[in-house]
Amino acid sequence: MSELSVNHLLGIKYLNEADIQLIFETADHFKEVINRPIKKVPSLRDITIANLFFENSTRTKLSFELAEKRLSADVINFSAAQSSVKKGETLIDTVNNILSMKVDMVVMRHPNPGAGVFLSKNVKASIINAGDGAHEHPTQALLDSYSIREKLGDVAGKNVVIVGDILHSRVALSNIFALKLQGANVKVCGPKTLIPKYITSLGVAVETDLRKALAWCDVANMLRVQNERMDISYFPSTREYTQQFGVNKALLDSLDKEIIIMHPGPINRGVEITSDVADSKQAIILNQVENGVAVRMAAIYLLASKIKQ
Amino acid sequence: MSELSVNHLLGIKYLNEADIQLIFETADHFKEVINRPIKKVPSLRDITIANLFFENSTRTKLSFELAEKRLSADVINFSAAQSSVKKGETLIDTVNNILSMKVDMVVMRHPNPGAGVFLSKNVKASIINAGDGAHEHPTQALLDSYSIREKLGDVAGKNVVIVGDILHSRVALSNIFALKLQGANVKVCGPKTLIPKYITSLGVAVETDLRKALAWCDVANMLRVQNERMDISYFPSTREYTQQFGVNKALLDSLDKEIIIMHPGPINRGVEITSDVADSKQAIILNQVENGVAVRMAAIYLLASKIKQ
Amino acid sequence: MSELSVNHLLGIKYLNEADIQLIFETADHFKEVINRPIKKVPSLRDITIANLFFENSTRTKLSFELAEKRLSADVINFSAAQSSVKKGETLIDTVNNILSMKVDMVVMRHPNPGAGVFLSKNVKASIINAGDGAHEHPTQALLDSYSIREKLGDVAGKNVVIVGDILHSRVALSNIFALKLQGANVKVCGPKTLIPKYITSLGVAVETDLRKALAWCDVANMLRVQNERMDISYFPSTREYTQQFGVNKALLDSLDKEIIIMHPGPINRGVEITSDVADSKQAIILNQVENGVAVRMAAIYLLASKIKQ
Repeated sequence: MSELSVNHLLGIKYLNEADIQLIFETADHFKEVINRPIKKVPSLRDITIANLFFENSTRTKLSFELAEKRLSADVINFSAAQSSVKKGETLIDTVNNILSMKVDMVVMRHPNPGAGVFLSKNVKASIINAGDGAHEHPTQALLDSYSIREKLGDVAGKNVVIVGDILHSRVALSNIFALKLQGANVKVCGPKTLIPKYITSLGVAVETDLRKALAWCDVANMLRVQNERMDISYFPSTREYTQQFGVNKALLDSLDKEIIIMHPGPINRGVEITSDVADSKQAIILNQVENGVAVRMAAIYLLASKIKQ
Repeated sequence: MSELSVNHLLGIKYLNEADIQLIFETADHFKEVINRPIKKVPSLRDITIANLFFENSTRTKLSFELAEKRLSADVINFSAAQSSVKKGETLIDTVNNILSMKVDMVVMRHPNPGAGVFLSKNVKASIINAGDGAHEHPTQALLDSYSIREKLGDVAGKNVVIVGDILHSRVALSNIFALKLQGANVKVCGPKTLIPKYITSLGVAVETDLRKALAWCDVANMLRVQNERMDISYFPSTREYTQQFGVNKALLDSLDKEIIIMHPGPINRGVEITSDVADSKQAIILNQVENGVAVRMAAIYLLASKIKQ
Repeated sequence: MSELSVNHLLGIKYLNEADIQLIFETADHFKEVINRPIKKVPSLRDITIANLFFENSTRTKLSFELAEKRLSADVINFSAAQSSVKKGETLIDTVNNILSMKVDMVVMRHPNPGAGVFLSKNVKASIINAGDGAHEHPTQALLDSYSIREKLGDVAGKNVVIVGDILHSRVALSNIFALKLQGANVKVCGPKTLIPKYITSLGVAVETDLRKALAWCDVANMLRVQNERMDISYFPSTREYTQQFGVNKALLDSLDKEIIIMHPGPINRGVEITSDVADSKQAIILNQVENGVAVRMAAIYLLASKIKQ
């Protein structure tokens, strides 16, 4: 039987293409499960998973929690706000304490890039990175590619543009790794100050004209604008951003083909995309959310199989 | 088999009398269940319920959560404090995101009157209103009437006075609708500035003398004083309030009959009612809490039956 | 079949030695359970437990929650931050409300010494004290003794020194009661201002020289330094504290025997103990955490048996 090449899901850059295909095929099965009346399988009754969120996150945490419960895993939640982390305990001590209570897997969001990798080298548990600073957010990239595959049949050969603040986005970076691995063509589009210079070394083209980017692509992944950053000097104002990099229906309709619009949420309606775009048939934003549960079930299930060996 | 006339529980004003009776008969069954050693039924193993609380609430949330778990539903909790609502997402987007994760029913508390109605028209899920601003709190009114019925055999024909800040109380409004629908006689009693003028149009009499109100009634429902409001000009001071509208044991004993004392909690002992009243046999405050779980199980169960059709 | 002499677990001072042995023998069984692939037993499917934490606590709450879930109890969590306690409700009313929802057992952490005892006299539920101010923390003391017993075969006759702020520590007090009851020899060691005068009346010797204390003992239980207290006049600075009462590897290696190092967590590495001590084979800190789940399962299970009678 097939298995992942890794024992942790720390970033797309640690996966190979076969890993991604295995996750997708497993997710196909779980997507069927979560559309049944009884949405649960008893697969992981013997696995305890701790969700460690050192940053707030509603939708990612909810999605992981549902994925875990639908696999019948035991779930414990730990959020930094209420935690002993405040009391000066080290990350390794915090996690080792939790693991001593017989926890098998840790899903962690942490503000520091590399926190998951660091942890995986220092504790005995399978680690899933649910976002580490501006570094990676692998399950988001997997659910994004899964949604493209579902809509277009395949990711290979497709033209995908990622629009927005590429510099600070773990969603962008993980998507780039995943899309390139699967043979898609990738461009990024956004304010010049928000596109890192190293991006071309990843095989990604830069296009600063949104209209040209959209005319080229099959899929546009519209990153969320972090309003709290918009007062920093090298950021445009929200208004300027929307004028140059926001997508409205008129712009979409002016293209000679029907492209797909994605967004990792939560949407700022009228900023990255207008409401008529968000609610159009071209947008697959809610499919992304639905697929998130199936893809996370698949990743958890496959990593758990390796623990049980 | 009987079923509700509605697909949502948004307010008592959308129910008919048969709906209320059906909920009560179903609650009778569940009250028996929660008094067994094993307090669970497997009825809703195929239903996922999201509790969305945009305002803090301990007892209502706990009561709903226990009701859901005792029906074996899958439960996910979402509180606004940790949520993407802060990030500027619309209510419809927030809820649609949660629904995309295969959620069947939403229990929502929201500060805005009509939030539940608005949502029910815009998303595909069964909505239960757990309190929307000063508008309605239907499950509270149902458990209150259920507790009267349990104690007095029937609600029809009974004299019920609601004492306190009627103007800002969703508990008062939902109770009025429920009691009138069942044929009770209803008076309200409280400071003139806190009784809305439209109240008489609901078939409710106003009585500003507490002693007269108590002499008339079979049941007095003592609303909670919101201390945080007591510094506003048209509110009396807490001391003045208690002098005019607080109930003590001497006052109760001076009546020529034994009336029932209700309170939605949490009690300010010594304000709305004194401790000897709260702890007397006439008070059915803890029965209300117990019945709350059974009534909520009934409402959830009956709405879920309509989803499954 | 054996049973506890008490209906509540309020403090070690209310237990007798047979109670402690019964808890340990029961914990032996549950420790085996939590090391199986499926870590659950169906024993308490008919028990509902409320965790009431009026103070933040990550690890104790997590440990209790896991213990409860692994016994298949229904669990509800209640934290003061979100609660009606803020609204001026009394503790008895809050707890009676929760109990009306058919809760059988309450695990409570509260800032006031004696809160658990007070509650046990005023409400109908089995109460477990999870820490009441500077008074007692009985399950911590039980898991500490259980860990000594596991490591050394027995507690009776062993020399145990408790190092740190004895004056403010519920961990110290509960440990002293538990160790004395089992026939251990107990000394305390720490800054003179932080050792209460009554301590000798408990049959405990005071040793202000850490080196002498370590040379005498089989086990050193290093209390956590509460950094937030270190600016108060009768406290030493953290640096002074570490110089006099911190344990490093050189100090340990200079002893002519291998003593055991315990710590209730979370550790301030470099303050109470250095990293090389925390990570050495002599430290059984993570065993304490693991045993905490088994010991709490045992205490809950044994108290529940008394409810069911």
